[in-house]
Amino acid sequence: VDELIEQVRNGRRRVLARLITQVENSEPEAQAAVAALYPHTGRAHVIGITGPPGSGKSTLVNELAKELRRRGLTLGIVAVDPSSPFTGGALLGDRVRMRDLSGDSGVFIRSMASRGNLGGLARTTADVIKVLDAGGFEAILVETVGAGQAEVDIAATAHTTVVIEAPGMGDDIQTNKAGILEVADILVVNKADRPGSEATVKALKFMLHLNPVGTTERHHGKFMEVAAGNQQAETADWQVPVLETVASEGKGIAALADQVLAHKTYLQGSDGWLAHETVRSRREIERLLADRFMAYLRAAVPAGERERWITAVAGRQIDPYTAVEQLFEQVRQRTFQDGVSDVR
Amino acid sequence: VDELIEQVRNGRRRVLARLITQVENSEPEAQAAVAALYPHTGRAHVIGITGPPGSGKSTLVNELAKELRRRGLTLGIVAVDPSSPFTGGALLGDRVRMRDLSGDSGVFIRSMASRGNLGGLARTTADVIKVLDAGGFEAILVETVGAGQAEVDIAATAHTTVVIEAPGMGDDIQTNKAGILEVADILVVNKADRPGSEATVKALKFMLHLNPVGTTERHHGKFMEVAAGNQQAETADWQVPVLETVASEGKGIAALADQVLAHKTYLQGSDGWLAHETVRSRREIERLLADRFMAYLRAAVPAGERERWITAVAGRQIDPYTAVEQLFEQVRQRTFQDGVSDVR
Repeated sequence: VDELIEQVRNGRRRVLARLITQVENSEPEAQAAVAALYPHTGRAHVIGITGPPGSGKSTLVNELAKELRRRGLTLGIVAVDPSSPFTGGALLGDRVRMRDLSGDSGVFIRSMASRGNLGGLARTTADVIKVLDAGGFEAILVETVGAGQAEVDIAATAHTTVVIEAPGMGDDIQTNKAGILEVADILVVNKADRPGSEATVKALKFMLHLNPVGTTERHHGKFMEVAAGNQQAETADWQVPVLETVASEGKGIAALADQVLAHKTYLQGSDGWLAHETVRSRREIERLLADRFMAYLRAAVPAGERERWITAVAGRQIDPYTAVEQLFEQVRQRTFQDGVSDVR
Repeated sequence: VDELIEQVRNGRRRVLARLITQVENSEPEAQAAVAALYPHTGRAHVIGITGPPGSGKSTLVNELAKELRRRGLTLGIVAVDPSSPFTGGALLGDRVRMRDLSGDSGVFIRSMASRGNLGGLARTTADVIKVLDAGGFEAILVETVGAGQAEVDIAATAHTTVVIEAPGMGDDIQTNKAGILEVADILVVNKADRPGSEATVKALKFMLHLNPVGTTERHHGKFMEVAAGNQQAETADWQVPVLETVASEGKGIAALADQVLAHKTYLQGSDGWLAHETVRSRREIERLLADRFMAYLRAAVPAGERERWITAVAGRQIDPYTAVEQLFEQVRQRTFQDGVSDVR
């Protein structure tokens, strides 16, 4: 393990790739390795980039990555695509686009697949980020699709979240924008050469202005679970900028890179960086605890018995709340009486 | 409680509305009421409708609802919008659109808000569906935005999942489509009068054809966690149709209603209906168990102590896996030694 850690810390690409594969496959060695690497993490600037299909997100990630490289930063890129059961989101598009960056030893690109297990995706992504962080990459771009739970989880993992829109995304625009305000540190209207771009920028700015909770609380909104008192220092204002880009022509990318780095400086200047780590740790601990309990339950209650509970609920012989109460009580008592042999 | 149940079962609107509000607020009485109603659920046909911003989803839900009403079905409509922290997704659009249906005593419409708590949303939606199911509504339309975890959870709640696209949704089209295949029972290209509709239909059909796992497994893909053996009877083929609609003009809506009802017949004819209930029950039990454990943990480990663990992980003094292992062991031992006073 010591040798592995040394190799990861030296950014040995083949070692990184192998370890990430083990993380993706949830191999037990992987967890031990990530645990051992953990003290060497916490330095990378994690940048989440999300946007709906059609916003030109992948092109923008590619261009932003090239810009950050020009500025001398080493980069990890994690393309998370929970919606592709096939090839980790790279049926045709991503791999082609990323060609510009491959062969650059200062860049490590990983496209992640997920066969339906979206809960697992947030966990796996968090561990892949740790590996790249320990591997010494200075910035880690995490590209996600959509705006669902996985995205919110991943946004909570990122220090800086960039949300991309395209002009005229249609009649759900208000509701869509409202959700964006909760996670975005930087808003980008990509494809800004298309008609309607100005209107989209205006709408976004209006929504930012409308937002009754204000800049500070909006930013805190991202960290919903944290008691307000924890992060007062973060209240130094970060004004969410609304930028226009035409990623396919490289337009506006330098300004975006400026804002991404400005947000990092902002976080480091306030207590935002530490507050972020605290939130991330809280979420991770809660997620791991829930997993741990379920593994324990599987050891404590035989599969056949678990199936009987499920069948009874499905058949309406018992309601789910009562079933869960009884199951939980059973786990507690077996712990007490028998000392459950805890196979994980 | 008996009187409440009677009133819900008689579809008393004010009682339904009040109970749903209690469910949304997670009031303890609500859980007792839903538990008591549970034996009276399981009859409604739950239809999930999802699609990205700009696909014209709300209009389509409205038109489909009117069509199903014309066919004599009573309807519950649940508009779930996890992305709006403001007004439950109805800043401007939904309420206006739904005006056609309000005043119809055979329809009950509920727009649900969620302030960031997406995990809670799936749970709350599941309970609202139960209330409407017990209230005697024959079909329940559940409208969701996007394609994230919440959508997958809600798709698992629905018997029939309709996924809507609009023509030319952009360059992420392949990855987007791949995810759709996992949850869709029916695919709809709305706004089919726009350019590119035919190409989108072709792309969808091609993706369905390409899909290496085949129709049967695709449908099972929706029920990922279930051992394959459980649902063999569902293998009678359901061919996912790709329909074109222009919801704003009511075009194609009758054909969509036909397919929605055909899918219900298909599920009832195979063991699909029961298989669905089993999966839904399993997910619900797992979700409730995880919640139960976290409540128990909060009672067993004082807040200050929990904070110390989080701070240690955030500060890299301990890795999260070791922290969780020790925390979990502590919960077990306290259970054993002290008999934790279990405040929920």
